[in-house]
Amino acid sequence: MTYSAKDYASLIGMEGFSQTLLKNHFTLYQGYVTNTNKLSDLLTAMLKEGKTGSPEYSELKRRFGFEFNGMRLHEYYFENLGGKTSLDKSATLAKKLADAYGSYDGWEQDFRATGAIRGIGWVILYQDDVSGWLFNQWINEHEVGHLAGCRPILVMDVFEHAFMTDYGLKRADYIAAFFKNINWSVVAGRVK
Amino acid sequence: MTYSAKDYASLIGMEGFSQTLLKNHFTLYQGYVTNTNKLSDLLTAMLKEGKTGSPEYSELKRRFGFEFNGMRLHEYYFENLGGKTSLDKSATLAKKLADAYGSYDGWEQDFRATGAIRGIGWVILYQDDVSGWLFNQWINEHEVGHLAGCRPILVMDVFEHAFMTDYGLKRADYIAAFFKNINWSVVAGRVK
Amino acid sequence: MTYSAKDYASLIGMEGFSQTLLKNHFTLYQGYVTNTNKLSDLLTAMLKEGKTGSPEYSELKRRFGFEFNGMRLHEYYFENLGGKTSLDKSATLAKKLADAYGSYDGWEQDFRATGAIRGIGWVILYQDDVSGWLFNQWINEHEVGHLAGCRPILVMDVFEHAFMTDYGLKRADYIAAFFKNINWSVVAGRVK
Amino acid sequence: MTYSAKDYASLIGMEGFSQTLLKNHFTLYQGYVTNTNKLSDLLTAMLKEGKTGSPEYSELKRRFGFEFNGMRLHEYYFENLGGKTSLDKSATLAKKLADAYGSYDGWEQDFRATGAIRGIGWVILYQDDVSGWLFNQWINEHEVGHLAGCRPILVMDVFEHAFMTDYGLKRADYIAAFFKNINWSVVAGRVK
Repeated sequence: MTYSAKDYASLIGMEGFSQTLLKNHFTLYQGYVTNTNKLSDLLTAMLKEGKTGSPEYSELKRRFGFEFNGMRLHEYYFENLGGKTSLDKSATLAKKLADAYGSYDGWEQDFRATGAIRGIGWVILYQDDVSGWLFNQWINEHEVGHLAGCRPILVMDVFEHAFMTDYGLKRADYIAAFFKNINWSVVAGRVK
Repeated sequence: MTYSAKDYASLIGMEGFSQTLLKNHFTLYQGYVTNTNKLSDLLTAMLKEGKTGSPEYSELKRRFGFEFNGMRLHEYYFENLGGKTSLDKSATLAKKLADAYGSYDGWEQDFRATGAIRGIGWVILYQDDVSGWLFNQWINEHEVGHLAGCRPILVMDVFEHAFMTDYGLKRADYIAAFFKNINWSVVAGRVK
Repeated sequence: MTYSAKDYASLIGMEGFSQTLLKNHFTLYQGYVTNTNKLSDLLTAMLKEGKTGSPEYSELKRRFGFEFNGMRLHEYYFENLGGKTSLDKSATLAKKLADAYGSYDGWEQDFRATGAIRGIGWVILYQDDVSGWLFNQWINEHEVGHLAGCRPILVMDVFEHAFMTDYGLKRADYIAAFFKNINWSVVAGRVK
Repeated sequence: MTYSAKDYASLIGMEGFSQTLLKNHFTLYQGYVTNTNKLSDLLTAMLKEGKTGSPEYSELKRRFGFEFNGMRLHEYYFENLGGKTSLDKSATLAKKLADAYGSYDGWEQDFRATGAIRGIGWVILYQDDVSGWLFNQWINEHEVGHLAGCRPILVMDVFEHAFMTDYGLKRADYIAAFFKNINWSVVAGRVK
């Protein structure tokens, strides 16, 4: 499988995100695509060459989730940005947010609080495929804490590269800018 | 959301898995269900009480994936065991395994090799929701290395509790027993 | 640097630890020595061959701490077992334990509680080289959570392989057996 | 134990490090001191109140290494910067670097390559207390991969906050600036 980097240049100009920050962010994203393919190719070659018992195989395999998620989460993130639309409060998503967090406001408060957790990583609103329930989940780096069998609905990057160029240490201001630019129609379309 | 432990007692008697091992394994699984609910309740209470800024909130939230996956992965695992059925080589799953790993045998070799990786955790055959591609993925403990936006198709536990009672240090023998008991019709039904 | 496995056979016969469990534990320990040397040799070779820019170099380097600690922590652990001596309540160690945890009993309660933390890994009583302070620290697996610039004083293994053969799921019973066999003179000798 | 933040303002003006970057970095460091004390106080209170069996106790304990190392590693880092001195090639440190990496140049190449590893964290030149051997070690975040029973000799921060403000995505340029400012007399003094 060879993945190709998608083009998110249309996000440039989005309020609260400088061109420098976004261009650097796209470059980082492209690095994850490149490295996902690189690890995938190396592992495929090792299988063919009968080297699956080597430490190199083990460690490249163990690392695959970091690169793959570094690619995939950036895609979810960029695709749920750039929106001017607001959440339809009568739609399935709004209803399910209220089920899980008491109200839309309860959910937003919890999502922002999750974004303020010390460390670097992601906040993901996950939907459980089995129960349909929604969870605001914290992810360390790219690969620690994902919920197996759940689908990402809304994804927010809180690596330092996502905000430091524009906001310094003020992560909460970045999160406010993120909320202003959520593409809710994309997000709502991810819910079942 | 309150989860309930499912009953997998029908697996008792499965060849290569002692009753002692399975009963202990069910007990451990029930512990994950209990703790998923406990963390979920604590986080819900903290949100209501306005304590989302506390270290306790952060750390319980950060840990949620460990308990949730400890619950959910055991369910996938027990449910893809107990089978006498073999893989239908003309079905979608067999075709996709061959696409990704050259042949069914190539896939099985890679899956077993992934199961031999040093450390404790899980092996998961994941299907990418976006591309449909299949990946044998190694997971450290319960929550490190999951592929975001992918669905578990076949799940194998390689924590020490999954095999040590019956196989001591012989993990490969346990993996052989696992393969003899895969419920392929369940597994095939998880693929799209 | 080539490390050699030490011989801890003199521990066989220790009350509360079966021969089967200890022999398997020694075998696992020897595997960490072997793999520490293997990773070290591979990294040295890559440096000589100018391959430090490869993914293989990165991932073997990233994994080194797992194997090295898997070796070193088992050595601390086996060496602080096998003792019949009790803690000298007038010695530096006893005094420092009381400073940090109110009393020896407070310390022991905290150490045992740390050993009951969900997950697999180690409990380490660490002494801070800078302040001299003592901390009961939880380690996930072998390499997550060590305190930089601190020295291990007392080390307890709580991987499943450390107790499951003899105690099944009863980790607290194993911890009780561990406490009966602490070699306090070795432990006291590690404190400054 | 209550830790106090040290003052590293004398580093301001160091070539290749802007005042903005350093001041933000000091602020982040102070946050780790604050949070180390906060977690320590919470854990002490829980022990007194008999709450060591709670999930909150477990998760604050599990997180302690992140905050403690976030504090301690920044101290090692700032203290091994600001130097104009060069490494004395006849000293113990130089000899031991050559033992481990063939030559000083071999060591420096390996250290820089470790700094280029994908991910965020630290590079630490560690000395094994047992064998005296030196290792360039990669640390994920603040707490993953430390070598138990080893002492930090040279510490380099490669979190994005350590360089992005001044160097954007050019991590290698930051590492070059770091090398120009190593305080070798401090570093040599840490070796035994």
